[in-house]
Amino acid sequence: MLEDKNPKRTSVSDLGEFGLIDHLTKYFDPIHESTIKGVGDDAAVLDFKGHKTVISTDLLVEGVHFDLSYTPLKHLGYKAVMVNISDIYAMNALATQITVSIAASNRFPLEALEELYAGIQLACKNYKVDLIGGDTTSSNKGLLISITAIGKATDNEITYRSGAQPNDLLVTSGDIGGAYMGLQILEREKEVFKVNPNNQPDLSPYSYIIERQLKPEARKDIPQLLKDLEVKPTSMIDISDGLSSEIIHICKNSKVGCNLFEDKIPLDPQVISTCEEFDLNSTTVALSGGEDYELLFTISQDDYPKIKANPHLTVIGHMTAEGEGIHLITRANTKIPITSMGWNSYSENNNETEKD
Amino acid sequence: MLEDKNPKRTSVSDLGEFGLIDHLTKYFDPIHESTIKGVGDDAAVLDFKGHKTVISTDLLVEGVHFDLSYTPLKHLGYKAVMVNISDIYAMNALATQITVSIAASNRFPLEALEELYAGIQLACKNYKVDLIGGDTTSSNKGLLISITAIGKATDNEITYRSGAQPNDLLVTSGDIGGAYMGLQILEREKEVFKVNPNNQPDLSPYSYIIERQLKPEARKDIPQLLKDLEVKPTSMIDISDGLSSEIIHICKNSKVGCNLFEDKIPLDPQVISTCEEFDLNSTTVALSGGEDYELLFTISQDDYPKIKANPHLTVIGHMTAEGEGIHLITRANTKIPITSMGWNSYSENNNETEKD
Repeated sequence: MLEDKNPKRTSVSDLGEFGLIDHLTKYFDPIHESTIKGVGDDAAVLDFKGHKTVISTDLLVEGVHFDLSYTPLKHLGYKAVMVNISDIYAMNALATQITVSIAASNRFPLEALEELYAGIQLACKNYKVDLIGGDTTSSNKGLLISITAIGKATDNEITYRSGAQPNDLLVTSGDIGGAYMGLQILEREKEVFKVNPNNQPDLSPYSYIIERQLKPEARKDIPQLLKDLEVKPTSMIDISDGLSSEIIHICKNSKVGCNLFEDKIPLDPQVISTCEEFDLNSTTVALSGGEDYELLFTISQDDYPKIKANPHLTVIGHMTAEGEGIHLITRANTKIPITSMGWNSYSENNNETEKD
Repeated sequence: MLEDKNPKRTSVSDLGEFGLIDHLTKYFDPIHESTIKGVGDDAAVLDFKGHKTVISTDLLVEGVHFDLSYTPLKHLGYKAVMVNISDIYAMNALATQITVSIAASNRFPLEALEELYAGIQLACKNYKVDLIGGDTTSSNKGLLISITAIGKATDNEITYRSGAQPNDLLVTSGDIGGAYMGLQILEREKEVFKVNPNNQPDLSPYSYIIERQLKPEARKDIPQLLKDLEVKPTSMIDISDGLSSEIIHICKNSKVGCNLFEDKIPLDPQVISTCEEFDLNSTTVALSGGEDYELLFTISQDDYPKIKANPHLTVIGHMTAEGEGIHLITRANTKIPITSMGWNSYSENNNETEKD
């Protein structure tokens, strides 16, 4: 493979702070009517005309949330936006604007930041989100990305974590555990690369799960789908930390219990085969893995006919009275309490996934 | 001085991420009607009912924006909020909510983060701002604070950098250069401390300028004052980078020129005496120093009688046609072009301030 050994490196300090912001944001054109003023003043000005404003913020730190040895900067920019707007969709709202702040050490030349912003721009384009402000600064070590996402919704649309009722159905979009297993593959290949840098791994059997890790897609389509189906979810959250943690959030906030059925958890075949390869329990991975950015929500049983057989949605359990607790109903029909770390298995055969 | 050599140190990891957020935010109670839902869901929900939403964001990095060897964490938390809400006031708007994200290395125990949040809380209380969300995470090195400030204003109130007209008066609140000279004192004392840690410096002659550096106050009062005086500023910006940089922003965005009068720049006596002590030109300090967080704005000459003799406001110049350029009119009545680095002095006696 021919590699350019001398890629272009322009020092960020040549541009200065204002020059850098101008340079990185010049191709971002606002498309929302609500964006009255974007980048270029002390603050951005938005007008949501009767809608409520929804705001969420996340911080991604190199070495904690991402590893640049296997994460292309463009993918990182894309993912950083997904992580944030996913929280807006989890309010059953529409993401409309973001602010992006970055702190980067002098290890990152202008071209690296351009790559990062190319990913941010692609995300903005695909998800119809306006970049309206931000801050760029230097750091002593590494790269840090702080994004605030802004969205809008009517009073009737907004869905909190707190509205689930006993007997409501628990529904997830997409499939679970892929991002975590993709990370396992990438971490393994990183170790192989350290030993033998000339090794060219065949990653094609893992393409789906690697994409789930490196280039996740937020479920913008789900709030729209639910609207089209005339389903008002009673509670909603995005799956960023793993199914068990999110179920506990809904149960705690809604003061309900939950029965989750192990055999209903949607798993991609690549997740199942890779779990076998790593000798990991796929249910543990789904419960504890995280970073899938699917939406988890509850609906009234009356709405079941509207979502039944929809390929994007899977009913995985139902809510119960608070006193009944939060349980996994296993394939063997035993009832195991779910904790935030997955579940308290009585079985010694249960492989624990490791999370930092 | 008796010092507790074993202050309490609780590891942040004992609490976990959600525990940490709950712990740090539990005393923050929303006071604004517009705060429908604050901390505790995927996103916050705000309702500005007919007002426009104003949003600004800033990132503060240890070693770049602050030095913890002389910055108490509580002051840092307070200042971080000031830096952000100042941008909202600079839109002639009212700051109503903030989100706060922090990345901290394991050098910072829980007690340190509590100190930081105590400062954030005091700022929220004094400025009537609701904390509505955020993120806490670990970093590999140092402390980083990312704040997004949200505010509201009517269409008529919002003031951009772009509305100044030739012949408008240029007005500043407060006095300029104090924060920069306070920093000089703190940096000098840090060097003295390195040589002789037992030295107890008498900083009382510098109390005002040190406070300007460590505990600045954003000018929330100015938008209200202008409303009371029935003055609608034509353009506005906050003085974060020094007077010259801000004047250039207004001129560039408004397509006008400016004459700034050296003898009108308001300077505190401590700034003048400390400049003499450091052999620095006080005008250079005011033009290039930064971090004063005063508001700089333009008004129509017709409004002059309304602000005349107001102790909070000083007319320091007037706007001209764009072609006339941006100049400092010195005490000696010579005309010197202003650049973003201060001004291009022809005089060799002009002491340049140093900025990183």
